[in-house]
Amino acid sequence: MLSEADNQTLTKVTRGTPMGQFLRRFWTPILLSRELPEPDCPPIRVRIFGEDLVAFRDTKGQVGLLEELCPHRQTSLFFGRNEEDGLRCIYHGWKFDVTGQCVDMPTEGPESNFKSKVKIISYPARDCGGLIWAYLGPIEAMPPELPSFRFMDVPPEYRLHTKYLRECNFLQALDGGIDSVHTNFLHAGLDRYQRNEDFNERARRSDDLDLRYRTVDKAPKFFARRTSYGLLVASRRTVEDEGNYYWRFNQFLTPYYSMTPRGGGGHAFVPLDDYNCWSFNLESRVDRPFTEEERERAHSGIAADVDLAGGIHMNKRIPGTFRAAANLANDFLIDREMQRTKNFTGVVGTGTQDSMAQITMGAIVDRTKEHLGITDVGIIQARRLLLDEIKQLQDGVSPTEATSPESYSVVGIQFVEDQSVTFDECIERHQNEIYAQLTT
Amino acid sequence: MLSEADNQTLTKVTRGTPMGQFLRRFWTPILLSRELPEPDCPPIRVRIFGEDLVAFRDTKGQVGLLEELCPHRQTSLFFGRNEEDGLRCIYHGWKFDVTGQCVDMPTEGPESNFKSKVKIISYPARDCGGLIWAYLGPIEAMPPELPSFRFMDVPPEYRLHTKYLRECNFLQALDGGIDSVHTNFLHAGLDRYQRNEDFNERARRSDDLDLRYRTVDKAPKFFARRTSYGLLVASRRTVEDEGNYYWRFNQFLTPYYSMTPRGGGGHAFVPLDDYNCWSFNLESRVDRPFTEEERERAHSGIAADVDLAGGIHMNKRIPGTFRAAANLANDFLIDREMQRTKNFTGVVGTGTQDSMAQITMGAIVDRTKEHLGITDVGIIQARRLLLDEIKQLQDGVSPTEATSPESYSVVGIQFVEDQSVTFDECIERHQNEIYAQLTT
Amino acid sequence: MLSEADNQTLTKVTRGTPMGQFLRRFWTPILLSRELPEPDCPPIRVRIFGEDLVAFRDTKGQVGLLEELCPHRQTSLFFGRNEEDGLRCIYHGWKFDVTGQCVDMPTEGPESNFKSKVKIISYPARDCGGLIWAYLGPIEAMPPELPSFRFMDVPPEYRLHTKYLRECNFLQALDGGIDSVHTNFLHAGLDRYQRNEDFNERARRSDDLDLRYRTVDKAPKFFARRTSYGLLVASRRTVEDEGNYYWRFNQFLTPYYSMTPRGGGGHAFVPLDDYNCWSFNLESRVDRPFTEEERERAHSGIAADVDLAGGIHMNKRIPGTFRAAANLANDFLIDREMQRTKNFTGVVGTGTQDSMAQITMGAIVDRTKEHLGITDVGIIQARRLLLDEIKQLQDGVSPTEATSPESYSVVGIQFVEDQSVTFDECIERHQNEIYAQLTT
Repeated sequence: MLSEADNQTLTKVTRGTPMGQFLRRFWTPILLSRELPEPDCPPIRVRIFGEDLVAFRDTKGQVGLLEELCPHRQTSLFFGRNEEDGLRCIYHGWKFDVTGQCVDMPTEGPESNFKSKVKIISYPARDCGGLIWAYLGPIEAMPPELPSFRFMDVPPEYRLHTKYLRECNFLQALDGGIDSVHTNFLHAGLDRYQRNEDFNERARRSDDLDLRYRTVDKAPKFFARRTSYGLLVASRRTVEDEGNYYWRFNQFLTPYYSMTPRGGGGHAFVPLDDYNCWSFNLESRVDRPFTEEERERAHSGIAADVDLAGGIHMNKRIPGTFRAAANLANDFLIDREMQRTKNFTGVVGTGTQDSMAQITMGAIVDRTKEHLGITDVGIIQARRLLLDEIKQLQDGVSPTEATSPESYSVVGIQFVEDQSVTFDECIERHQNEIYAQLTT
Repeated sequence: MLSEADNQTLTKVTRGTPMGQFLRRFWTPILLSRELPEPDCPPIRVRIFGEDLVAFRDTKGQVGLLEELCPHRQTSLFFGRNEEDGLRCIYHGWKFDVTGQCVDMPTEGPESNFKSKVKIISYPARDCGGLIWAYLGPIEAMPPELPSFRFMDVPPEYRLHTKYLRECNFLQALDGGIDSVHTNFLHAGLDRYQRNEDFNERARRSDDLDLRYRTVDKAPKFFARRTSYGLLVASRRTVEDEGNYYWRFNQFLTPYYSMTPRGGGGHAFVPLDDYNCWSFNLESRVDRPFTEEERERAHSGIAADVDLAGGIHMNKRIPGTFRAAANLANDFLIDREMQRTKNFTGVVGTGTQDSMAQITMGAIVDRTKEHLGITDVGIIQARRLLLDEIKQLQDGVSPTEATSPESYSVVGIQFVEDQSVTFDECIERHQNEIYAQLTT
Repeated sequence: MLSEADNQTLTKVTRGTPMGQFLRRFWTPILLSRELPEPDCPPIRVRIFGEDLVAFRDTKGQVGLLEELCPHRQTSLFFGRNEEDGLRCIYHGWKFDVTGQCVDMPTEGPESNFKSKVKIISYPARDCGGLIWAYLGPIEAMPPELPSFRFMDVPPEYRLHTKYLRECNFLQALDGGIDSVHTNFLHAGLDRYQRNEDFNERARRSDDLDLRYRTVDKAPKFFARRTSYGLLVASRRTVEDEGNYYWRFNQFLTPYYSMTPRGGGGHAFVPLDDYNCWSFNLESRVDRPFTEEERERAHSGIAADVDLAGGIHMNKRIPGTFRAAANLANDFLIDREMQRTKNFTGVVGTGTQDSMAQITMGAIVDRTKEHLGITDVGIIQARRLLLDEIKQLQDGVSPTEATSPESYSVVGIQFVEDQSVTFDECIERHQNEIYAQLTT
């Protein structure tokens, strides 16, 4: 539960709000790199933190991120012609380069100097690790480096990124990314949830820790520790018959990243505005490139594993868009017979299940009505961390001083330890894995 | 015509408003019983008086009506699993019984007592007479009995209930249910409206009083009398050539029921919120069960009688919904050629005709602009009655003291009397029919 | 650039606003005549200056324009029966003539005098020149004459009018109609824009001044002169190799008409409300009737000329409506490959190109953010003129005193003159053409 004031502080992202100022101090993933596939390709609309912008890749391959409307008469530059190192407005031909400088103004004639005086808002943008990044904060506070995620270091073939729109405030998505206990329910097939004899037999024979242990204990104990990148959130499940603990480490990286305990992947939940966010689904590996089939499955949103859940990419989309085909307007295509006999929700796909849980709370959930329990330690700590860092920024301490971009190369992990090993000892023992090369 | 203040008082239904308080003192029809067909069937959304709720039928067959959002993290319980005497949230598995008590909280572990402290809003609900009823008022003022409608007493096969959404304030629908003179126009075929020689010949040979006399006099005289259930509204048409009066008795039962003069049927116009109401269409008979064909016709909305009007159920619906296929967005599928040559409106179906007349007034009609005439006696008296009872409630008199649930077993009737018989004498003479067993 | 206050003054059109009062002093085109094709045809909805009305043609052929809702119970008269010199409400049969007088009130009985006391808002309406005109201002200030456009004087076969909805404030459409330099870009094929050797060779051989000269000079010099009808706006392009000037005269006729320089045609941009306007596309000729093929092309919106632009009518519509099939919701069906290789915009049709440029500014563009240049003289002067006339009206001078209805028979023209001829001399020399009989 939060006060109304804290809920406002944590959820409102437009310019001038505390969270809006905070978020603008980070490099922000705004697009998949493949959305601007080549020089002079069509420009695209970008809505980020409530600002309407247009992104384009110029003839040299540089990415520009400009305010949407032409300063001449306010026609949208999204419809502009991307040509010869600049974006040209279709109404009267004014042209702008990636810095926002007007570089051609044909209606004024060749002798005019007017164009040199017209410059529009542009934000620094970079193409790295399969994502387009932008910086929307004050230039003097711009972090020199992008966060050093694992997927930044591998060749493109070893990465697999997707995205879709989630029609709710980003903090609801982030809460879900940190709260790993919900996987016992929301993402569980009925066999895994109920753990009958057959399932247990199958689980015992499996190498997959997640399959074997995730639902053995429905009330895991939670731990959290602040780090240089954000928060390490651990859930500990008791494995009665083995006398062990099954540990899952989720990572929360400020301001909106989470890394799942299965390793190698995570999400960025980036606000378009107060009521919508992107789920960027980020995956990489080091052992081999992703196969075409893996890419096809991730992009198409075809999912079917033991839980009818699937991986981090799963969500069938409306063709030609990044909107989920199963959405609030159609009750997420819930199948009540499937819910009765196959899985917990009656819907297919991890992403759709998360969307169902989060979007039905309302565009911005009223957190004054929450009743948080012992498994909500992670989200409580993460919210506190964000409130603290926002406060620090108001006191003059930049989040890039508080956090550390080079520390972002962590992943989530899972492991089993003897019941005598403490949380602190676990961190020490598995430190290398958290930072280790990925294998999935 | 009403003052702006009275119009507000009569139309606003959310919690805390005068009408909202008044309506909440009655047992309210919220669903058709068949919408919750069996124990542990899928839960459904209920919006009533501006409140968003979820209804379900538990393993024992009891109906629960709960606030929609789970108290844990505010995920919608509409998507919940209905299982073993409770509704379980899909996010973290918290489970609630029909009283709103949390009965399972798996994330807290078996030893926790937290669940006993968590109880959500639930409203008493009953399944009776083919409808699900709920009580949303103060518990200490809950009427012990449901209103004793005729259709409560007959076996299910002798009832035929339908419903559809009407996208306007409930009072517009109720005004229409009380105002019986509009049937001379809105629901009339051109032959009945014009009464040419052919039609009159056909009418003379018919046993149907409605067909013979309804349009003989387009300016009927109106009478109203307050009763223990609400208002008896009578219209009296002069039958010139027979020297008689043709009487039609409509019944208005507080707070939103009307019974049509053709007997055996009526409507409940129940507010979803200020701008939408359900038309529950309630019919019963005592002579024989309804046939499959009659049910099929009522449910499918296929209508075609002499007036292209049909009975109380008529309204083709968008498949899978209770929304009318002919609606404001498509101009009620008006056919101007039909309007020129066949019937008064150019649309088919009594319900669609009513919706066209009422919805096009606006979501809440501005009654300060009305010009009421001599045939509007019924609606004037009904509004006055509602204002009086709201005032009484504010003075501490419950409407269930003012009205009398056991008196709700009245029906509308029609008959012919000599011109010497007064309104009061008519009531006395036909008292038995008003309360008689139904035959249609 | 405008102040926020001036932008409000120029764009808000509802009753009581300065522009709303100003616009209501003119005869206003509200419908194409063929939308009310014959006596007793179906009535249609009219939304104009934010008022919801219903238009009908009575048995005598007279046009009535009434407030939409019946004064009895506020049911929409749009659904009414148009019969025997009046529009009859479908709810209770009240009937109104073209003056708004209630002429039948069947529910009150024949002896009642109530109907004579009920009269609703009606506006004077006329059918002339292929358009239905209405006057929504104070009756005592009603101009006796309609504006004397050229198309008023020719037989119906010599006129070709169309209309479509443009989803933005009317001033954006009007700005576009006055600003003729945008045709060099927005409406240009790439060959015309780039003027390579092939194109220049083709242009040299053409009689079409527009084709030959429009894009020879991308920074034309602008001139404007106030007239008795509004503003004459001239653009002068230098034709280097011939040592001439190519002149284009656009006409702005208060309050929202523009006449294109190609002669014979123009637009009326009439506000439905603050956020939508009609583009009435008005064309006439004197040499011969329009052919069936020309009409078919104009009505269907099939366009394909050298610029993929077409004439003033071009805009494919959603069947059964006056809404453009290419609209903001589908990004005006922009084809990026066409934009790269064929024309400046990637969309087909002058109207669609204009809509794209204007609608993407927002429903009401924020003119405080404009950066106007030397080619914006026309729109600057036109806005100033409107502000002056609004101010005059507030000082008690009617716009029909300021302007002169009989002077509206001007057209736009184009011509070539020696570089020694001044703007004033051009007007003098071509005065006759501006008022000449049309030939296209």
